[in-house]
Amino acid sequence: MQSHIRFDTDALELHLLDQRLLPMEESYCVCHNVAGIVRALQEMVVRGAPAIGVTAAWGCVLAVREAIFESHWSERLEALMESIAAARPTAVNLRWAVERMRRCRQQAADAEAGDLLELFMAEARAIQDEDVAACKAIGRFGADCLDDGDTVLTHCNAGALATAGYGTALGVIRGAVEQGKRIHVIADETRPFLQGARLTAWELQQDAIPVTVACDNACALLMHRGMIQKVVVGADRIAANGDAANKIGTYGVALLAHHFHIPFYVAAPLSTLDTATPDGAAIPIEERPAQEVTCLTGQPVSPDGVPVYNFAFDVTPAQYISGIITEAGVLHAPYGPAIARVLQEARPA
Amino acid sequence: MQSHIRFDTDALELHLLDQRLLPMEESYCVCHNVAGIVRALQEMVVRGAPAIGVTAAWGCVLAVREAIFESHWSERLEALMESIAAARPTAVNLRWAVERMRRCRQQAADAEAGDLLELFMAEARAIQDEDVAACKAIGRFGADCLDDGDTVLTHCNAGALATAGYGTALGVIRGAVEQGKRIHVIADETRPFLQGARLTAWELQQDAIPVTVACDNACALLMHRGMIQKVVVGADRIAANGDAANKIGTYGVALLAHHFHIPFYVAAPLSTLDTATPDGAAIPIEERPAQEVTCLTGQPVSPDGVPVYNFAFDVTPAQYISGIITEAGVLHAPYGPAIARVLQEARPA
Repeated sequence: MQSHIRFDTDALELHLLDQRLLPMEESYCVCHNVAGIVRALQEMVVRGAPAIGVTAAWGCVLAVREAIFESHWSERLEALMESIAAARPTAVNLRWAVERMRRCRQQAADAEAGDLLELFMAEARAIQDEDVAACKAIGRFGADCLDDGDTVLTHCNAGALATAGYGTALGVIRGAVEQGKRIHVIADETRPFLQGARLTAWELQQDAIPVTVACDNACALLMHRGMIQKVVVGADRIAANGDAANKIGTYGVALLAHHFHIPFYVAAPLSTLDTATPDGAAIPIEERPAQEVTCLTGQPVSPDGVPVYNFAFDVTPAQYISGIITEAGVLHAPYGPAIARVLQEARPA
Repeated sequence: MQSHIRFDTDALELHLLDQRLLPMEESYCVCHNVAGIVRALQEMVVRGAPAIGVTAAWGCVLAVREAIFESHWSERLEALMESIAAARPTAVNLRWAVERMRRCRQQAADAEAGDLLELFMAEARAIQDEDVAACKAIGRFGADCLDDGDTVLTHCNAGALATAGYGTALGVIRGAVEQGKRIHVIADETRPFLQGARLTAWELQQDAIPVTVACDNACALLMHRGMIQKVVVGADRIAANGDAANKIGTYGVALLAHHFHIPFYVAAPLSTLDTATPDGAAIPIEERPAQEVTCLTGQPVSPDGVPVYNFAFDVTPAQYISGIITEAGVLHAPYGPAIARVLQEARPA
């Protein structure tokens, strides 16, 4: 698959594979400016914590171009970058990427706007390339967590589409398959956006990795029948103590896995670790529009005016996580010290 | 609401409110013969264990009319009745109702076909009326299980539409509201058929009982946040030991309720108790077509040819059930003796 996030350096525009239309239609949404980037993030043209981080980085490039002709271009640039960082609240990768672009800017404090554009393009490209490399390392470390013949449940899509490529949870599955292990994947359909039924099923089908779709609520029955050996999911933010925010429903899957003594792994790059957030209670949970739940393929299914809870994420407490699979290895409990150590080792001296 | 199951005694046809189209469209499906009844059951024009029991009883009336002109009418009648009983495997009420019609026939062994039609109509009417009465009694007993101010989670639709009227789980909620208690209901949307988002939301909205829809996978978050005080669900078959089959997803809700120390009640008429089935492992679980999961409002959402697990029911082990609310009172563990006793007391001497 060619990258679903492609920056055109001549036209200065970002091409995003529109994930709302997959798998029925492969069409690209083209963003020319920051407003377009923010809209693409909020309307979930692109989703998945690492992927929205990469998108945010390219958005900062567009922010430079947009600010460049203004008299107070520096303040304008900062305001545009902040609007990108604030587009969605839960995934820390969004703000992480913008922070990294800010540091890039600080290191070139005297740069002219024109030079800054080049610097930003190089940094965004680095963020994108590093994310693919991180996913491949996650895949190598995570592969050892899976056994030949396993059926692995995953929730939502933590695949190539959720990252710059290869995927986190699906990276682990791809890594195991590359080791020669036979893996069957069960993809939770993942209401309301159906990332599992649409995106995970599509990705794995393209890679010829056996995948079966099930409704989210089949989890307990499938586990009870011994049809699931491992669970691997992604994450949108992992707090300092290891509590992990991910797509709504992940917490329930983790509790059921715990009940049935099934290992439950979280796969995420170090950019998803957020030591500024002490624990899960401090992670903001996005609430999204009711019609994502009450309308299917554009048609209403619920009676008019019925209220809806549409929390987009939940938080799995660290105690239910068997391991956090990162590009620097698999972290185990107690997660507080493990996370602090891995981040310290990863930081350039 | 007028009854959603109406038999026209002049035309000899059964009018069923088409539950596939609710709440967007209120239209009736008319069954003239047994094939139409079987199709309506299998395609879920009507669903819900007690409602399909009532439908089956009226189907037996149509079976008499269909068999009446044949030379071996008695054998033909039996074959038609068996085809109704076999239309769906999990809900015991279907076979229970057909068995009751068989007993009615045995008691009038010498009846001519014409007289049998009258007897069957009276028996089907009795089954329908008794089901409404049972639901109202379930509502009165169950109301005491709920407290003023409770938010009650329910899964699927165990309401008027799932019964001859009033409902089992929703009967408990209606009973509590009639006692003057303020109850807020959270309706799991209940994939794939969306009985919660479509039917439960519609019924409660019509009765002005506050209801909020949530995706099935929001359960753990809502419980974690203290937003649910009780769970009440229906059942399709309760085995001799209290294990209860109900819509797929119920088992997961029960395990999560157990984890969060939230009372979990099953509401069902005595016709759903099946002492011929020793435990949950012996309850057949229906598997339904993949496209119920992969198509939404007629449009495909998953990639072509991806396999699907579409188990329609799961079984909640008795140990996770706080009480079984019947028209003869609330049963408590140990359920084996409680079920045996209540059925013995209910049987005419």
